[in-house]
Amino acid sequence: MWDTLWTDVHLATMAPSRVTESDPYGCIKNAAIAQKDGIITWVGKKEDLSGSPQTLARNVHSMGGHWATPGLIDAHTHLVYAGDRSNEFARRLEGVSYQKIAQEGGGINATVTATRAASEDILLELAIKRAKRMIAGGTTTLEVKSGYGLTLEDELKLLRVARNLEKHLPIRVHTTFLGAHALPPEYKYKQKAYVATLVDEMLPRVAKEKLADSVDAFCETIAFTPSEVAQIFEAATTLNLPVRIHADQMSDSDSCSLAARFKALSADHVEYANEEGVKAMAKAGTVAMLLPGAFYFIRETKLPPIEWFRKYNVPMGLATDCNPGTSPVMDMTTIMNMACTLMRLTPAEALHGATTIGAKALGLQKHIGVLQEGYSADVSFWPVSGPHELSYWIGGVTPSARVFKGQYD
Amino acid sequence: MWDTLWTDVHLATMAPSRVTESDPYGCIKNAAIAQKDGIITWVGKKEDLSGSPQTLARNVHSMGGHWATPGLIDAHTHLVYAGDRSNEFARRLEGVSYQKIAQEGGGINATVTATRAASEDILLELAIKRAKRMIAGGTTTLEVKSGYGLTLEDELKLLRVARNLEKHLPIRVHTTFLGAHALPPEYKYKQKAYVATLVDEMLPRVAKEKLADSVDAFCETIAFTPSEVAQIFEAATTLNLPVRIHADQMSDSDSCSLAARFKALSADHVEYANEEGVKAMAKAGTVAMLLPGAFYFIRETKLPPIEWFRKYNVPMGLATDCNPGTSPVMDMTTIMNMACTLMRLTPAEALHGATTIGAKALGLQKHIGVLQEGYSADVSFWPVSGPHELSYWIGGVTPSARVFKGQYD
Ligand SMILES: [Zn+2]
Ligand SMILES: [Zn+2]
Repeated sequence: MWDTLWTDVHLATMAPSRVTESDPYGCIKNAAIAQKDGIITWVGKKEDLSGSPQTLARNVHSMGGHWATPGLIDAHTHLVYAGDRSNEFARRLEGVSYQKIAQEGGGINATVTATRAASEDILLELAIKRAKRMIAGGTTTLEVKSGYGLTLEDELKLLRVARNLEKHLPIRVHTTFLGAHALPPEYKYKQKAYVATLVDEMLPRVAKEKLADSVDAFCETIAFTPSEVAQIFEAATTLNLPVRIHADQMSDSDSCSLAARFKALSADHVEYANEEGVKAMAKAGTVAMLLPGAFYFIRETKLPPIEWFRKYNVPMGLATDCNPGTSPVMDMTTIMNMACTLMRLTPAEALHGATTIGAKALGLQKHIGVLQEGYSADVSFWPVSGPHELSYWIGGVTPSARVFKGQYD
Repeated sequence: MWDTLWTDVHLATMAPSRVTESDPYGCIKNAAIAQKDGIITWVGKKEDLSGSPQTLARNVHSMGGHWATPGLIDAHTHLVYAGDRSNEFARRLEGVSYQKIAQEGGGINATVTATRAASEDILLELAIKRAKRMIAGGTTTLEVKSGYGLTLEDELKLLRVARNLEKHLPIRVHTTFLGAHALPPEYKYKQKAYVATLVDEMLPRVAKEKLADSVDAFCETIAFTPSEVAQIFEAATTLNLPVRIHADQMSDSDSCSLAARFKALSADHVEYANEEGVKAMAKAGTVAMLLPGAFYFIRETKLPPIEWFRKYNVPMGLATDCNPGTSPVMDMTTIMNMACTLMRLTPAEALHGATTIGAKALGLQKHIGVLQEGYSADVSFWPVSGPHELSYWIGGVTPSARVFKGQYD
């Protein structure tokens, strides 16, 4: 007997076996879906159930004709931080220059300072508050990066907080070590030394404590060079940690090729990616993670090369990039709307970006991201006329119900 | 004795008497605010209360240090309609041309057809559902336009639905007759005749039934000419109905000057407004109603002339323009973020746009839009660090509590 059976529901399964050119969502209308012990045990037309619902499951929920999708996956966030940069946002709009704000200790250094000063308990409390807003928006899986500590102890602290989220919330968390987020202020003019510390001390310790599921680096003129990132990725690879990269956000540093060389799970931002890099990603199976929140917030005008991603079959993921400096956004359907409106993705591409492709970017494509027997019963229910409507509303759609490993939140 | 006293709250009063250059929100920190019979009866520092809270009010609510603002005012919406255009949004992104969609009966005509076919009950049910989402976002006053009926009976039906919202929800509604929204299909090539019908039949009947608080017209190359709009405004003025206008959204038709000539409450969109028009609005006291949702959705690149509005002291309002074709958005803080991010308003300008200026655009500036003794006790409470944070979050902020004329929703 199943634990739960949901009926009177339409499904956007997103399952490769059901997706066709004319139905990119793999829809089943007038469907039912069941779970036992947190795993989907049955998916199909309601009329094909082998008996009356009450004989098949302990709990039967009628969903009033709402649509169900796989729980949304937010595969790029900087969720764990202290401090508040909303004031900086206001001051910039009042005409204060970036320079002046940086001089006064603003910018990313403000977040690093506040995050270092915050206790693990406080950071956890703040992260839980933010993750709850994400959950409210239909997200069931979350990637969380470190990167505002930038010392061994502070980075470990952030990663522990990220791991601990799973103890307090039903959400699934994938943690990423992003020691190479920015040069810590105490290493000014000593970037080489910081990279050495990263490679020789921080990474091995992170690996030893099993606190990170992957390793990220910010490859950009204002951050780390391709050869520094390569050093970090070599070390990560040796430690059996998969990598991902903040790539080509503000300039073309050929970091998509670099990503492909290390078979990165994802290359993220990628506005300035070049065609060779895109081809290399296709070969390597690296996801192009689009982050329209940051694109919008910093008023970027160069669009990521969507046509190349389509041409070379590079899967496009979507994520919030939730962070206090360039992407203060929590919910994935807001991001899906931005991906469609600003970047001209189709709503089907957007929903795949937030489900199947997000799963692939986390290496979890065999566990989450589709509604199919054997996958985790992570399901979001929506009061919409079809899955395309999830991308239609500016400011997003709120799910009518959310299920994590078979359980309501 | 007061009915309600809220304590442990910070106030962004927005009151002209408290607003200064260094404090554009007119803040009172560690404040209290009281109401009796739906009217604000006391506003000030908590320490200045003349006794202990329990001796002053029947109900005392401690708000945990959250911020309170005037309930938000959404002064431009097309809330009453039937049909669903999300599919059209998807098909455009899949590469189908506007032309083909229009040929198939899409575009505004799709909404007109569905709205005409819908019963008053259905329309009310749909409008209530949408208004509830607006309420959830902190809106306490709503302007609602007709304009998808385009026959006398259908326009009356829409206006009755708009009026009836107040019977089912705590929200305050201002209704606007927008018969001049589009040329109804049955008047193709007979625009003059439709304007005559509007002026001679529809407007007098709307006025007689007291169904509209103002009259609007869409002045644009694809809609009505300035001289047609002038005819409609003459008629409205004769009937003592104030006017407002969809002005200069896609081209400069000098409609801001037209608005000023009729002392319009607001000129809306105004991306292509010219400098003389802006000066004329300043003289006439006409609000420039900015609609960043539509600006974003149609990917407009011409910004409204914010610098001229500032220079000539034209008050800038903000609204959702909620409509199925060009601005599917419900909550005002999403709009405030867009006004700041895309149009470079300051967060203080954005909050005034959603409170004091919205009130002025509805002619209600003596009743709503500020937290001050004598005004309606419409209050939204927010879990933020300051009122500027309301504009910071992409996708908006959800209020922690909402009060309409003294009552929680
Ligand atoms: Zn990032
Ligand atoms: Zn409008």
